[in-house]
Amino acid sequence: MVHGTLYIVSAPSGAGKSSLIQALLKTQPLYDTQVSISHTTRPIRPGETHGEHYFFVSEAEFTRMIREECFLEYANVFGNYYGTSREAIEQILSTGVDVFLDIDWQGAQQIRERMPQARSIFVLPPSREELDRRLRGRGQDSEEVIARRMAQAVAEMSHYAEYDYLIVNDEFNTALMDLKTIIRAERLRLGRQKLRHDALITKLLAD
Amino acid sequence: MVHGTLYIVSAPSGAGKSSLIQALLKTQPLYDTQVSISHTTRPIRPGETHGEHYFFVSEAEFTRMIREECFLEYANVFGNYYGTSREAIEQILSTGVDVFLDIDWQGAQQIRERMPQARSIFVLPPSREELDRRLRGRGQDSEEVIARRMAQAVAEMSHYAEYDYLIVNDEFNTALMDLKTIIRAERLRLGRQKLRHDALITKLLAD
Repeated sequence: MVHGTLYIVSAPSGAGKSSLIQALLKTQPLYDTQVSISHTTRPIRPGETHGEHYFFVSEAEFTRMIREECFLEYANVFGNYYGTSREAIEQILSTGVDVFLDIDWQGAQQIRERMPQARSIFVLPPSREELDRRLRGRGQDSEEVIARRMAQAVAEMSHYAEYDYLIVNDEFNTALMDLKTIIRAERLRLGRQKLRHDALITKLLAD
Repeated sequence: MVHGTLYIVSAPSGAGKSSLIQALLKTQPLYDTQVSISHTTRPIRPGETHGEHYFFVSEAEFTRMIREECFLEYANVFGNYYGTSREAIEQILSTGVDVFLDIDWQGAQQIRERMPQARSIFVLPPSREELDRRLRGRGQDSEEVIARRMAQAVAEMSHYAEYDYLIVNDEFNTALMDLKTIIRAERLRLGRQKLRHDALITKLLAD
């Protein structure tokens, strides 16, 4: 049975990570990938669907899942819990599909500990100037807010060396090709190929 | 300084390994790669150039190089020595170019021991029938010769699981793309990218 790979993708805000992952998912079925769906205790918003955007659960249910170690990682953000269920991920991986997890360096560290076979990718912006420009957005925020965003981005980037792969998102299509290249190469690794070509290998090695 | 990667490529005869490597080298400079040039004690043939096809050396010189551990691997084939000099490889790698080494499983084992950072790729034929067809060639050899070739191919293939990557050469262009994908993905690994984007990373992480 072919088993998918879990990819952890991290980046400072402004590096273009979300656009890259969205573009990647559109290239299915050639690159058979899904994003992970998180559990959360925050209220469902109009237009959101349970099991599509999030698994919406009560705080009692979420804390029970924490106790029973159901999460590969979880965090509390402004009073709401967000977590990645091991079971939800494993279920997709077992069908041979790769799963993408868009997460910060702290979540990435938790996942590496619990799932060492996961591969991790860090996305960097092409320059400090471009990062500054992207963090300014439409120019409606104060210098203080921009400075805080930049400090956060630098803090996130300071963990880049904990990742397996590094992509510099200068030209979008090149960065997207880099992402696809990593997925395709990982599928050519011995472990994956051995499972995929099991029958062929048996025949080739027969006396 | 960016440092190239040494790739070991092995396959049974009939898997199409040489054609793949030749086609890969034609795609330079995008995939900046070279094949390794071996040292040998066999006499130079008309049309061959020292330093291009082989480094042609005397047996005294070759045995001196063995004694001084100049070789990543060497073998004696029908009375002639063939070897891969560590210095020749290192010199190319230090310019940031990847080096391809077309070698059997025994040479691959020697190299892995002396250069654990090398990546290895095994190429398999698409089926036993196709392998048989390719080993028969133009149909001018005896069944005994064919059977000996097949036994050799099976012996070589029995070592496939010692390699990092596995390529099945069914459709040539797909297999070539697989090879390119591996090279490109290896260049996206943290170690290579860290060196390549050293200046950018320093600027991004500045306070």
